[in-house]
Amino acid sequence: MLSVTILGNNSALPAHNRHPTAQVLQAEGHTMLIDCGEGTQMQMSAYKIKRNKIDHIFISHLHGDHYFGLIGLLSSLALNNRTSTLHIYAPGELQSVIRLQMKVSRGDFPYQLCFYNLDEGGIIFEDKKLSVECFKVNHRIECWGFLFREKKNLRKINIEKVNEYNVPISFFENLHRGDDFINAENELIKNEILTIAAEPSKSYAYCADTAFYEPIAEKIKGVDLVYHESTYLDADSKKAAARFHSTTKQAALIAKKAGAKKLLLGHFLHNTKRLINSKTKPARFLKTQK
Amino acid sequence: MLSVTILGNNSALPAHNRHPTAQVLQAEGHTMLIDCGEGTQMQMSAYKIKRNKIDHIFISHLHGDHYFGLIGLLSSLALNNRTSTLHIYAPGELQSVIRLQMKVSRGDFPYQLCFYNLDEGGIIFEDKKLSVECFKVNHRIECWGFLFREKKNLRKINIEKVNEYNVPISFFENLHRGDDFINAENELIKNEILTIAAEPSKSYAYCADTAFYEPIAEKIKGVDLVYHESTYLDADSKKAAARFHSTTKQAALIAKKAGAKKLLLGHFLHNTKRLINSKTKPARFLKTQK
Repeated sequence: MLSVTILGNNSALPAHNRHPTAQVLQAEGHTMLIDCGEGTQMQMSAYKIKRNKIDHIFISHLHGDHYFGLIGLLSSLALNNRTSTLHIYAPGELQSVIRLQMKVSRGDFPYQLCFYNLDEGGIIFEDKKLSVECFKVNHRIECWGFLFREKKNLRKINIEKVNEYNVPISFFENLHRGDDFINAENELIKNEILTIAAEPSKSYAYCADTAFYEPIAEKIKGVDLVYHESTYLDADSKKAAARFHSTTKQAALIAKKAGAKKLLLGHFLHNTKRLINSKTKPARFLKTQK
Repeated sequence: MLSVTILGNNSALPAHNRHPTAQVLQAEGHTMLIDCGEGTQMQMSAYKIKRNKIDHIFISHLHGDHYFGLIGLLSSLALNNRTSTLHIYAPGELQSVIRLQMKVSRGDFPYQLCFYNLDEGGIIFEDKKLSVECFKVNHRIECWGFLFREKKNLRKINIEKVNEYNVPISFFENLHRGDDFINAENELIKNEILTIAAEPSKSYAYCADTAFYEPIAEKIKGVDLVYHESTYLDADSKKAAARFHSTTKQAALIAKKAGAKKLLLGHFLHNTKRLINSKTKPARFLKTQK
């Protein structure tokens, strides 16, 4: 299951009851948080996402609307007596900010914080089912995009057929991987007969904050869903360029060049008309049932 | 006019749609913010309090639920091109936290921040109409209470009477201050005849977070309204003492010993039943019309 929940889609200035950037990715047994603007922990309560389930946090850059909610979230986890390690991937200076805030509160954190400083693109997290890559985007300060990919899903055993063809359980692993079966009579039974195709694995790319920057399209080639910032409308492309942000049209162009199946817009300017009502129902995307 | 608006009355853990501590005091032409938990700037929008009007900020202590919203507020003021100086009174370490956060964002602040480190009790702000004192309370870390006092209001001129008794305008200042008037015939006209008594000046004391601590009562003697934290109910007085917090009963006892006219409770534990609905209407106290 891969599911993205938008907790905030606003740019820096609070407006329209929208919230600054934060997204929750539920993926392959993980609950991952991407950016953590002020009020994210309250938004998690509103969306009934359990804070303590978060195991990995990715912070794109150190503008406040992308991380000012982090220390509050970490403190609440401490007050709730979390014990499991929390992994944070971010520009290196974040660690000094968080450590200083922990120090001045004189509080003990009952869980371990593992910081990973982003300094070059590539895979920053990987397990059997999921990988996360980071890549540079083009903002006023150091800023990173993230690409989340489910690994290739295994084919499923067709119980009826394996019984019919007397396939031993010891061969099931091979079937999952796509091997054909040769029986005692030396007959070849094609894998497609014995298994059911897996649901295609999904991918999600997060690209914020950034000016229009074509190398992104190459990095996220063929992604299922891309979130791309769109602070400005097309008419304001000069402002967008000057402030290292993108327009809606530019976001669409990146998605098109990347061959992305779907595009999700966000980081709307405070005076942009509200496009998504973040107060009513959670906006969930890319959810697949297996 | 002296008016207190409660933007948040919750203790550290987010709950019940309540917000962490923040109060706005509108007093004698000032808009003063007392503590600034996460989300305070959004609460200000909800209560239609203009962020840019704030001229003085008082931070009691460096537990996150009392200051994590400050950097977001300061950043929004910068994005809104504030130019007027902002004064912040807080334990000294706050300055290093804020300066570090400003540094990592690489942003320019178009206004000046003046930090005043709280290190001993006494008057920390004073002008013609208002004074602010700080005093130590008793919490796990260095923590300060604040006492806001309007200065004695001047008596008002009774226009009808000053005309009747031919009092020259040059003597009006004396009348404001309470002097009697001696006319050309050497007759003494009592001040009470020529003026109207001013509305009594008001005072407000803010006491959070603190264990039960009797010296507070002495510091705030005769105050009109006292806000005292009441994290726990009376049944949990042992927990309260262990965590350097107070119970409702203890808050009342301090108010009584101080001879305070009114008591305002807050800093409710996250699992305390909601007593004040902070989502509906602003809770305003001590508002007087002059």
